[in-house]
Amino acid sequence: MSLDEQGKTGKSGEAAANAQWGGRFAGGPSAIMRAINVSIGFDKAMWRQDIAGSLAHAAMLAKVGIISAADEAAIREGLTEIGREIETGTFVFEDALEDIHMNIEARLSERVGEAGKRLHTARSRNDQVATDFRLWVRDSIDGLSAQVSALMRSLATRALEYADTAMPGFTHLQTAQPVTFGHHLLAYVEMLSRDRWRLADARKRLNECPLGSAALAGTSFPIDRKMTAATLGFDRPTANSLDAVSDRDFALEYLSALSIMAMHLSRFAEEIVIWCSAPFSFIRLSDAFTTGSSIMPQKRNPDAAELARAKVGRVLGSFVGLLTVMKGLPLAYAKDMQEDKLPVFEATEAMTLTLAACDGMVRDLTANGAQMRRFAGSGYSTATDLADWLVRVLKLPFRTAHHVTGRLVAMAEAKGVDLGELTLAEMQLVEPGITEDVFSVLSVDASIASRTSEGGTAGSNVRRQADIWLTQLNGEQAGDAA
Amino acid sequence: MSLDEQGKTGKSGEAAANAQWGGRFAGGPSAIMRAINVSIGFDKAMWRQDIAGSLAHAAMLAKVGIISAADEAAIREGLTEIGREIETGTFVFEDALEDIHMNIEARLSERVGEAGKRLHTARSRNDQVATDFRLWVRDSIDGLSAQVSALMRSLATRALEYADTAMPGFTHLQTAQPVTFGHHLLAYVEMLSRDRWRLADARKRLNECPLGSAALAGTSFPIDRKMTAATLGFDRPTANSLDAVSDRDFALEYLSALSIMAMHLSRFAEEIVIWCSAPFSFIRLSDAFTTGSSIMPQKRNPDAAELARAKVGRVLGSFVGLLTVMKGLPLAYAKDMQEDKLPVFEATEAMTLTLAACDGMVRDLTANGAQMRRFAGSGYSTATDLADWLVRVLKLPFRTAHHVTGRLVAMAEAKGVDLGELTLAEMQLVEPGITEDVFSVLSVDASIASRTSEGGTAGSNVRRQADIWLTQLNGEQAGDAA
Amino acid sequence: MSLDEQGKTGKSGEAAANAQWGGRFAGGPSAIMRAINVSIGFDKAMWRQDIAGSLAHAAMLAKVGIISAADEAAIREGLTEIGREIETGTFVFEDALEDIHMNIEARLSERVGEAGKRLHTARSRNDQVATDFRLWVRDSIDGLSAQVSALMRSLATRALEYADTAMPGFTHLQTAQPVTFGHHLLAYVEMLSRDRWRLADARKRLNECPLGSAALAGTSFPIDRKMTAATLGFDRPTANSLDAVSDRDFALEYLSALSIMAMHLSRFAEEIVIWCSAPFSFIRLSDAFTTGSSIMPQKRNPDAAELARAKVGRVLGSFVGLLTVMKGLPLAYAKDMQEDKLPVFEATEAMTLTLAACDGMVRDLTANGAQMRRFAGSGYSTATDLADWLVRVLKLPFRTAHHVTGRLVAMAEAKGVDLGELTLAEMQLVEPGITEDVFSVLSVDASIASRTSEGGTAGSNVRRQADIWLTQLNGEQAGDAA
Amino acid sequence: MSLDEQGKTGKSGEAAANAQWGGRFAGGPSAIMRAINVSIGFDKAMWRQDIAGSLAHAAMLAKVGIISAADEAAIREGLTEIGREIETGTFVFEDALEDIHMNIEARLSERVGEAGKRLHTARSRNDQVATDFRLWVRDSIDGLSAQVSALMRSLATRALEYADTAMPGFTHLQTAQPVTFGHHLLAYVEMLSRDRWRLADARKRLNECPLGSAALAGTSFPIDRKMTAATLGFDRPTANSLDAVSDRDFALEYLSALSIMAMHLSRFAEEIVIWCSAPFSFIRLSDAFTTGSSIMPQKRNPDAAELARAKVGRVLGSFVGLLTVMKGLPLAYAKDMQEDKLPVFEATEAMTLTLAACDGMVRDLTANGAQMRRFAGSGYSTATDLADWLVRVLKLPFRTAHHVTGRLVAMAEAKGVDLGELTLAEMQLVEPGITEDVFSVLSVDASIASRTSEGGTAGSNVRRQADIWLTQLNGEQAGDAA
Repeated sequence: MSLDEQGKTGKSGEAAANAQWGGRFAGGPSAIMRAINVSIGFDKAMWRQDIAGSLAHAAMLAKVGIISAADEAAIREGLTEIGREIETGTFVFEDALEDIHMNIEARLSERVGEAGKRLHTARSRNDQVATDFRLWVRDSIDGLSAQVSALMRSLATRALEYADTAMPGFTHLQTAQPVTFGHHLLAYVEMLSRDRWRLADARKRLNECPLGSAALAGTSFPIDRKMTAATLGFDRPTANSLDAVSDRDFALEYLSALSIMAMHLSRFAEEIVIWCSAPFSFIRLSDAFTTGSSIMPQKRNPDAAELARAKVGRVLGSFVGLLTVMKGLPLAYAKDMQEDKLPVFEATEAMTLTLAACDGMVRDLTANGAQMRRFAGSGYSTATDLADWLVRVLKLPFRTAHHVTGRLVAMAEAKGVDLGELTLAEMQLVEPGITEDVFSVLSVDASIASRTSEGGTAGSNVRRQADIWLTQLNGEQAGDAA
Repeated sequence: MSLDEQGKTGKSGEAAANAQWGGRFAGGPSAIMRAINVSIGFDKAMWRQDIAGSLAHAAMLAKVGIISAADEAAIREGLTEIGREIETGTFVFEDALEDIHMNIEARLSERVGEAGKRLHTARSRNDQVATDFRLWVRDSIDGLSAQVSALMRSLATRALEYADTAMPGFTHLQTAQPVTFGHHLLAYVEMLSRDRWRLADARKRLNECPLGSAALAGTSFPIDRKMTAATLGFDRPTANSLDAVSDRDFALEYLSALSIMAMHLSRFAEEIVIWCSAPFSFIRLSDAFTTGSSIMPQKRNPDAAELARAKVGRVLGSFVGLLTVMKGLPLAYAKDMQEDKLPVFEATEAMTLTLAACDGMVRDLTANGAQMRRFAGSGYSTATDLADWLVRVLKLPFRTAHHVTGRLVAMAEAKGVDLGELTLAEMQLVEPGITEDVFSVLSVDASIASRTSEGGTAGSNVRRQADIWLTQLNGEQAGDAA
Repeated sequence: MSLDEQGKTGKSGEAAANAQWGGRFAGGPSAIMRAINVSIGFDKAMWRQDIAGSLAHAAMLAKVGIISAADEAAIREGLTEIGREIETGTFVFEDALEDIHMNIEARLSERVGEAGKRLHTARSRNDQVATDFRLWVRDSIDGLSAQVSALMRSLATRALEYADTAMPGFTHLQTAQPVTFGHHLLAYVEMLSRDRWRLADARKRLNECPLGSAALAGTSFPIDRKMTAATLGFDRPTANSLDAVSDRDFALEYLSALSIMAMHLSRFAEEIVIWCSAPFSFIRLSDAFTTGSSIMPQKRNPDAAELARAKVGRVLGSFVGLLTVMKGLPLAYAKDMQEDKLPVFEATEAMTLTLAACDGMVRDLTANGAQMRRFAGSGYSTATDLADWLVRVLKLPFRTAHHVTGRLVAMAEAKGVDLGELTLAEMQLVEPGITEDVFSVLSVDASIASRTSEGGTAGSNVRRQADIWLTQLNGEQAGDAA
Repeated sequence: MSLDEQGKTGKSGEAAANAQWGGRFAGGPSAIMRAINVSIGFDKAMWRQDIAGSLAHAAMLAKVGIISAADEAAIREGLTEIGREIETGTFVFEDALEDIHMNIEARLSERVGEAGKRLHTARSRNDQVATDFRLWVRDSIDGLSAQVSALMRSLATRALEYADTAMPGFTHLQTAQPVTFGHHLLAYVEMLSRDRWRLADARKRLNECPLGSAALAGTSFPIDRKMTAATLGFDRPTANSLDAVSDRDFALEYLSALSIMAMHLSRFAEEIVIWCSAPFSFIRLSDAFTTGSSIMPQKRNPDAAELARAKVGRVLGSFVGLLTVMKGLPLAYAKDMQEDKLPVFEATEAMTLTLAACDGMVRDLTANGAQMRRFAGSGYSTATDLADWLVRVLKLPFRTAHHVTGRLVAMAEAKGVDLGELTLAEMQLVEPGITEDVFSVLSVDASIASRTSEGGTAGSNVRRQADIWLTQLNGEQAGDAA
């Protein structure tokens, strides 16, 4: 990369810049044009998709009689061999051929002669690249969805394990009410299930085949677009040739879904960082997911979590970048759209890593139940339970019960004790109707156990919900394997 | 708004700033806190949703016996009356009550006394606001979807009208091949249909009811969340109380869908601006959608198109803003999330206006068919047709046909004539196999008529596709009316 | 606002949307066009700037003889009176007059007749709006800079107070080395000083006067642009009329500076939220900057900090929005640029509030020194001091000293003691050269006191640095007052 | 890159994903952690800066007596040799050593033994990376500034050449008034001069040296930070060690300046694309900056302009990405900040290419003066000149003159003639005071020549302004060379 050529430091900046210019663009206009225009450096990532698309196209051309069976056989053999060359690293990518499409087509003609020159009949680079890129994004959706499922499985598994582990439930990072750690982990399963659902929806919308739209107007050849669409696993051909070659919605929708997913994981990563801090000490990550310091061996920097937290920046930046590129572009194809690949590739790589890291951390972490419980029970976290008792048993209106509870907490605070440490007599000074029964709702365990409303934090709920998820996720996995 | 108080110009900036501070925050901390904390100024937009949510909650509380039927009746009557007060403008919104929820609840207690104080049993502001906001976004999805459908109908109607109107199809804004104006308009119908589909998917994912999640942990009251969900038109209750109060995915997904839609409309608006320029003169907008100048009455500034083009900025900014807010927030509710409303409100307003403006322009525009045809036929726009003829009739490999065509265009260019103006003899100098038949493919009309592949630009395709859309859209409309 | 009209909930969404459309756009195209085009709703915030610009323009026109002295006097009197009308709320803003410029000019002609009609000579709305908006942004820069200075003063004042208060210095939110709380607060003074510097630089670049550029090409009237520039406090007239009316760099640079500033404050706000959590309990905010709960009176939700943390979303969204608007706009003026105001107004309001809230919190907070010290001294936070001692006294190479220290920490960890609790004999098992002197560097206080390198955390450094800032800031304030 | 491994297309997505996971993360946690943590793949771009920083640090350590002169000599020699190894490609970068800093330090110890182990005394990776990255950004600022100057020179040179070439001045892409092409080109010189100025300001703010801040708290060694700062060309050391290691303002400000610059170039690129379209045909680019098509040899796709237009997406995305990363990070260093490099590297590469491409196009383009003039003179483009004449000569108030002109244009439009083709008698029907003299202002040339106000479009202005720029830019260049 040219970035290595970045000049020397200090005063010589201008000279360095000149050298840089001299070095890179000494060839003049042609060097500049090549540098800004060439895409093989990154679009070679789509080689599998390009070959798959060409195989489908050739088979169709033969089927409808545009090329001969012999030509199709030659093309098939040639492309298969080229795939092997790329896989084994013997294929020579040439900048002069600009992109992956021309690199492969040129090599094909080299290998199979005239038949190779017939391959591009009834298509153009515009529909070809749109097809390849859709295939690539579709593969990535499948890959990331599988990773999301794996992470959901890990979270649900740990949630089951920690279904009864009390922890402070926070709002504003202030202790609010006791919850279970399992319940907290399941909240992320819910978020991820929406992420997966969004990817699935994006996949459906993406799954139309642009191949055969040609440059922008369709073609006069009697092609069978339904056939190529089916061969490539698409649901149907796209319906408008102008739209087909100038649409990048599928990339944008994918990036927007990834942005939201990355945001979810940034929240989880933030919690890991906070939970690992000395004052919290809610969880511990092993050496595998922390970096130490030979000088402070007790230090376990949660680097993986921090990087996971940061990746939302890259993914959101990718979405913003591509949407900005597309803003205000007249139809149909414009070269601006070549800027679609890198944001998608980079966001995909970021999410692949982040999902793997989060899954690893979920499997790896150990909860410090004692420390969690300590904070779960402090800070008058069961005050709401007291108010609810006043409503339920004494039939006070909620706002009144709220007020009475406030006075009781103030009394406890003044005495420096917990709510449960007030005497019944003290409580009756504030509200004479209070009975001994009230103490049954003031413990952490009672509070948690009582939250049995649908979606509530009671351990029984957590176990049921985790079981539902695990059954579903394991079923899907089995289905995939079958 | 405080912005009107922005200080005087010139050197007195610092003084102005001090005055500003003095004026706004003279009350000290309490004034600052109120100013940053209060949301009634904007969240009153959700008053209908707040009342609907409370009505459903009260009905459920009565059904399961947490409040009495009499209390429920009082609450119902009170809220209905409050709705009337707000509608007629007699309701007094108070900053001191912070938000729409407390404004309404306080007024309810004022009107119906103790019953009003029972309303907040088994819920909290956290699940209440999440419910109200979901309802608001869902209503907006419905409203915008209807507008998108209307715009699709207008486009398809005009496409039918212009199904045979030739225009230059551009790539890189360079003439590539002739297309029809109807085909071009239908490309936007495709884009909008994806936008509408995305909104529908977002609506499905949104359509779970957070009510009953309470502060964050669920509740110990025996509530019936399925009942409130059903009453409010939700598909089901949310499954995890922590997730329910800290999730804003529905707003983010909505904003991301709007961003992509706004981008589509920015492309259409850009085309309108270019088409209205003097050199293009492809279309004309009436006075209704342009602004004139009393000094240059011929000037028709396409202001509506320019504003439509610009709105993608606001919508994308809203998405970026909210995603940035959510980045790295620990569970469950945090006050940061109060920053969710304005981006959503503003993006909704922007898209409501933009869709209306685009629909108006589509209905209003008049195509200048002669000018379009003039450019459609110049620039050797049928060169591809010639190449395809060489493949189809002479069985040349495509890459060879491509090369032969290049030589013929160069010959025509050198002579300063169009391809169709070369003589057969001249053509045969380059490729002896060419016959008289070739001239049948070199006209704009022949080129367009030949593009009958699925999704191609042939007039017959355009008519068929427009009909399909109109049938579907009119059917939906009839269904809505029924 | 139309948002209040958002339809009813439930199934009636489509109907509601139709009603909405019906209600808002029943007037047809003209209603749509007015709704998307009108800007008086927000640009009236610039009324002071518009009047100031017109006064300067009229004075110049009179000076060079384009209008008479009598006309100028009439205009001056009329505009002054209009200013009073707006200030006192008696001015009637009319949507039909679209923007603040036409509202004021129309009212002027109403008041002073023919003279008013001469005001617009040799200018156009394009240069007028560019001038007004620059003045507005300049005033905001001055206002926000003053707020930044105030916050820096508060931070430096508290830093002096806490110059010797030990706290754990974190990297990765893991205890690394002891620092002082004063040092930590001064880090934000540094950040804010860059923010203020950036605003000052933006102000310099902004400070060129577009007035006189007219529509886009300049004018044939013999105007004196230096005079209007000087009157309005600009450094010089802009140099190119096309650039002057199509440039919004000043707004973008302002928003980018605000984005970085908002990010700084989001970091501070995040720290406040974490420090206020029960496990940390590093600081306490009073009731003034927290919201309580009548039910949990001990709860002090740091709402102000959370909102301050969130505002970076809105500000960044504003920058992204406006830059996206400007992307790819041909010269000169385009209506898209009317979308410049709201992002700037909203970001300004957000930062005004955030700076006020942060200043309030800084003045309000109380540090819990004991708790901070407890964590400052745990976690082998002085291991680096030990390594440095080995280098300094025993002359070990740093990497070797690093390694030796690691072994000593491991030994201490195994014994469950702090580094300073190892015996000399134990230490000598690892490194025989160690002497009694080593214990002098292992305490929190010794560690802090030794960090006297420029910019280091030693209390003496903190006091010196805080004094430098306070002297400078108080000097500036005195200068302003003088 | 792993992206090449993206799985096969079609139904096998899940399997492919599993393979992908298997392939990449078969090593389990350690493989994941390495993949997410390692930065040598990109941060090796900073090798020159890392060596420069270490040389300065070693010289200082020797100067103040922390290491011996012999050690310093060994380090110097070793680092110099390592620089040569990297330059010649013989250096082996190792992933296991994570980043460029450890790669170089490890190799140094390998080469020079114990002396190498002393290099890291009194510094840490935190201040080292902050220093290296600042140096890299500073070098890039210098390089890009030189490119901006070159582009300004090219624009001013062409502006001089086209100082009298009339073209239509557009607002709303509608013909407004005649301007000169030279004036239009100079508008971009103004924009670029602000870009350059912004970079210069960013450089000043960046130019403080973090080296010696150590991990976060400073150091107890008696280092001389002023010396290292001076050696590396910094203006001074940073003032607060916590801020120094957690600050990335310099990268953000750089990216924000680049975003605005990229926006400017997107506007220029958009104009090139429009000007090159067949209906406009205002300019022509040679083959060097267009891509052709062997099938349509007349086609000159302005690919370079389109890519230049698109790059603003990547640059803005980079800014958004990094700001999002920094949002809400507690002090001091967090691993999230490792995400600072790629956005900066990528945006730099994008701008290097874009500036080169724009410079190339400016030098390359040929204006079609006849076509420009044709549109400059149509559309009643001199109506404003007529109104100004009515004000100047007949002393009509401007708004009245405006109205009279409107009636005259309407008359001309009705007759289908230009303003200058109305007879005097016809004009006098509307305004009896009009004299023969009016015709002198109605031509394109007269209109342009009259716009002599400061910054106006008159040819004389353009020449003067171009000369001023060329003198200044050539002076700077000479100064650099000297």
